[in-house]
Amino acid sequence: MPTPREGELLVHNVYLSLDPTMRTWINELPSYFSPVAIGEVMRGSAIGVIEQSRNAKFPEGTLVLGLLGWQDYALTDGTGLRVLPKDPSIPLTAYFGLFGIVGMTAYFGLLDIGKPRAGETLVVSAAAGAVGSIAGQIGKIKGCRVVGIAGSDEKCHWIEDELGFDTAINYRAEPVLESLNKHCPDGIDVHFENVGGAILDAVLSLINLHARIVLCGLISIYNASESEPGPYNLPHIMQIIIKRARAEGFLVLDYMDRAREAMQDLRQWYAQGKLRYRVDIVDGLQNAPRALNKLFDGSNKGKLIVKV
Amino acid sequence: MPTPREGELLVHNVYLSLDPTMRTWINELPSYFSPVAIGEVMRGSAIGVIEQSRNAKFPEGTLVLGLLGWQDYALTDGTGLRVLPKDPSIPLTAYFGLFGIVGMTAYFGLLDIGKPRAGETLVVSAAAGAVGSIAGQIGKIKGCRVVGIAGSDEKCHWIEDELGFDTAINYRAEPVLESLNKHCPDGIDVHFENVGGAILDAVLSLINLHARIVLCGLISIYNASESEPGPYNLPHIMQIIIKRARAEGFLVLDYMDRAREAMQDLRQWYAQGKLRYRVDIVDGLQNAPRALNKLFDGSNKGKLIVKV
Repeated sequence: MPTPREGELLVHNVYLSLDPTMRTWINELPSYFSPVAIGEVMRGSAIGVIEQSRNAKFPEGTLVLGLLGWQDYALTDGTGLRVLPKDPSIPLTAYFGLFGIVGMTAYFGLLDIGKPRAGETLVVSAAAGAVGSIAGQIGKIKGCRVVGIAGSDEKCHWIEDELGFDTAINYRAEPVLESLNKHCPDGIDVHFENVGGAILDAVLSLINLHARIVLCGLISIYNASESEPGPYNLPHIMQIIIKRARAEGFLVLDYMDRAREAMQDLRQWYAQGKLRYRVDIVDGLQNAPRALNKLFDGSNKGKLIVKV
Repeated sequence: MPTPREGELLVHNVYLSLDPTMRTWINELPSYFSPVAIGEVMRGSAIGVIEQSRNAKFPEGTLVLGLLGWQDYALTDGTGLRVLPKDPSIPLTAYFGLFGIVGMTAYFGLLDIGKPRAGETLVVSAAAGAVGSIAGQIGKIKGCRVVGIAGSDEKCHWIEDELGFDTAINYRAEPVLESLNKHCPDGIDVHFENVGGAILDAVLSLINLHARIVLCGLISIYNASESEPGPYNLPHIMQIIIKRARAEGFLVLDYMDRAREAMQDLRQWYAQGKLRYRVDIVDGLQNAPRALNKLFDGSNKGKLIVKV
């Protein structure tokens, strides 16, 4: 058990967030974060309670959220920590979802990069995932026809019946291109991409003039090796030119100074009953490595969280 | 020989422009134009002189440019025709290049989509081609470090020594990724893409934060079949997210109402000696089909034109 020095605090982790992007942190290739080195504590966003503090800005007992890592206790000087309010109406786990990075990712990705307009058709991949499910619901709030792509009938029912998506496509049971073609009779104006690969190819073949492709994640390739061969579905890349489309990547980290704007809207929509979410809680830090795989085989149901 | 009816004119074609995009017009897949049907006159931009006119807006002897097709004579009602000035200081063929669609493609693609800033690094593929050679020179005018990729030593010397590119890479003689890495020590901020495939992959691996990828053409895939397998160089697609980059397609046809703006700048820069071009003229309409292939094997030297 480490002991805090002057200016430091000891946080007892309670919940750990598991997110697809973590997979990219353990590649050798540098990304927006440097790769986690072998032997280092795995990087991860966690919520904890301050057990010991030698830093006046962080009293003992305060709830905090930050990159506290896959560990029971974290020693930190408080840099980058977010102090969570003690608001009993909001469950702590929501700060990993709707009221955290995940909600902001959906919010800024869809609205700032996708720029959806009422009446347009929005397609969301990994639509039952933490980010996709919120992006699709925001699309409905903005007046879009929203088609979600997910990997099981249960997920499809959830996003259609509970979240209000217009249609859901089970990519494991249906031919995606044909189903998209059927359910997007006016083509696709905005695509919120969490998957990549064959799903992105199918979407590109149906985009409208001036379509916007929000490149949020590419979970289908995070486990692929650089040299893996695959289909280069050529005419679909050409569609970006023919349709004068825009494909743009973004990282929510660039939007931190606009967090208040997102939180205001997300809280209001949640209070109005327009946004729903669900969490999938795995018990015990020792189960985190196996649990991370649930994001890649699609067996999680909602925002994946480890109860430390 | 057709005879014009009331309102029509008969144009005697003089020059025919050959452009890579023509290859996409003879695919079965619909593009920004409908496919040319078997048995139809091949679509093509031509310059001709009006030999007979029954349309008061177009006097006989007028020089015009338009989609007059691969034929000696075209019958038209004048829709879409551009009347060319009789200015002896500008050779007719320049209206296919610098002072035509090609010049505007380079101008709006680079400036409107690429938004280069002084001091940034610009990479241009097919840099000795009609569009690429102008895009690179505009990049120099705007103060960029400009690296061109071309397919022969002769082309590389031309763009370096005559056009003022900072460096040229011969993709047939050098490993493109290594050479780009060497010649772009500060990374790549803007990429003007005319080629696609492996060259685009190499560029993506070196892009900077907030890079802009101008998708102008993908000549490497115009002759490919839909099912052709190829390397899915996965981490490079991911670069668009990691670097918050934007890849955007455009068509010069959308900029026709801003033609005057481009022409003013292009004429001024040309008069100041800041823009150069060259033409590659093939004699005889009967040689047009074989000549079109020169764009794909890279044997043309400059804007490819058929003297009808």
